[in-house]
Amino acid sequence: MEYNSLVQEIKKKKSFLCVGLDSDIQKIPEHLISQDDPIFEFNKAIIDKTAEFSVAYKPNLAFYESEGPKGWESLDKTVQYIKNNYPEIFIIADAKRGDIGNTSKLYAKAFFENMIFDAVTVAPYMGEDSVSPFLSYKNKWVILLALTSNKGADDFQYHKDNNERLFESVLSISQKWADKNQMMYVVGATRAEMLTEVRKIVPDHFLLVPGVGAQGGSLQEVCKYGLNENCGLLVNSSRGIIFADNTEMFAETARHEARKIQQEMEEILSNANII
Amino acid sequence: MEYNSLVQEIKKKKSFLCVGLDSDIQKIPEHLISQDDPIFEFNKAIIDKTAEFSVAYKPNLAFYESEGPKGWESLDKTVQYIKNNYPEIFIIADAKRGDIGNTSKLYAKAFFENMIFDAVTVAPYMGEDSVSPFLSYKNKWVILLALTSNKGADDFQYHKDNNERLFESVLSISQKWADKNQMMYVVGATRAEMLTEVRKIVPDHFLLVPGVGAQGGSLQEVCKYGLNENCGLLVNSSRGIIFADNTEMFAETARHEARKIQQEMEEILSNANII
Repeated sequence: MEYNSLVQEIKKKKSFLCVGLDSDIQKIPEHLISQDDPIFEFNKAIIDKTAEFSVAYKPNLAFYESEGPKGWESLDKTVQYIKNNYPEIFIIADAKRGDIGNTSKLYAKAFFENMIFDAVTVAPYMGEDSVSPFLSYKNKWVILLALTSNKGADDFQYHKDNNERLFESVLSISQKWADKNQMMYVVGATRAEMLTEVRKIVPDHFLLVPGVGAQGGSLQEVCKYGLNENCGLLVNSSRGIIFADNTEMFAETARHEARKIQQEMEEILSNANII
Repeated sequence: MEYNSLVQEIKKKKSFLCVGLDSDIQKIPEHLISQDDPIFEFNKAIIDKTAEFSVAYKPNLAFYESEGPKGWESLDKTVQYIKNNYPEIFIIADAKRGDIGNTSKLYAKAFFENMIFDAVTVAPYMGEDSVSPFLSYKNKWVILLALTSNKGADDFQYHKDNNERLFESVLSISQKWADKNQMMYVVGATRAEMLTEVRKIVPDHFLLVPGVGAQGGSLQEVCKYGLNENCGLLVNSSRGIIFADNTEMFAETARHEARKIQQEMEEILSNANII
């Protein structure tokens, strides 16, 4: 997907919501467990009810990998289902991969050729040649970890070299690898106050912001510091939407939760004169 | 596996060789392609011919993931085959995973419960809570990336905070999370001169050293700076062994290459009075 198409979708849907498909088999409603592929059935219902309010879906690979080969099938079916039914939606493999060049090339093949993701999250620790194989695919994206939403982010991401913290080095150095048309950054909502610093380095890039909802981040705070003239944000919510309810009404409740966020987003976009 | 058992195996086999099962379907001998599961058949032949000279195997997940659900089956069968036939061998999932706590927990489940790996490589960028879920399994190991063998290692791993480079911070901070009985570190053979610095911080830990062979690292250099009194090294070779020959003799040639390295290792261990 192109940068401009994503911006247009955001304006059309009046939403920059990304729904995290962290479809933990332990947490999906009991009545689905007897189905042939409960994870896929769960995802399908969630997608059908929330696609109107979402511009992106983000399955986290761990929830599929932990189910073995069957989990990979559920994932593949989910991605195909989205592409076939909602081709305008941006699909992110939250994989946090990163390996030496010849190996990253195979991860890129897995996510961009075998499966048809639009983007993959990548960990920056191993540097340029671990990232660049993903960038050789036209209109496919790397979403690089910069400042994550978890407590452990404090351990290394603030490591300071001549007043430049590691996450700032990641933002500035990686801009040489790709521009805003192929690169986004992960910045956790729990670090909203840091978005001012992030925007000094990457004013134009999209930021993928997890951590709103269950992890405690605030949408208002994120937008106050992170919004740019094209929106420039994809704000992710996972558990707060997909596990809001574990009865037979789970998908309806998910729709309700997604809509609530979309309405808040619409107001924000409107106040910022983006729509 | 326990630390002491690994040391005993090294002494018994007079080897600290880890064979990297980077079993790229594009590179395996043509006569295997018509088999039901060519990757597994390839691995099985390699394992049977090299197990005598190896204390560890390390499949890199990218080579399996890129084959989809079928690749996961090949991987699972490979790990089971090793455990059933060579239970003394240490098996490493070279996955370079790392995610927020509740997600890393599922990766840990994938590698330590669904599959029966002894260790998994983890990227340190997201800090303690991305690593600790792997450490809750008794006698299972985390192998944390410290200084990798690729060119991109220069981008961030030498980032300097008060004279402490990022890889040094990773080594020192992570020691609070686990000791030498559950933690190892990746240090690339192409950075052999840095092993002196690494050993100042982690004198007792095992180091997993990739990059000997195809990537240009030297076994002698690695041992000169990295060996400790219990050996403390697992030196990996992948392409140099498994793809040394792509005729029907591939496994015999792999055996020959593994044996050559084992003999060099035996001499080193003997000169250092470890055996």
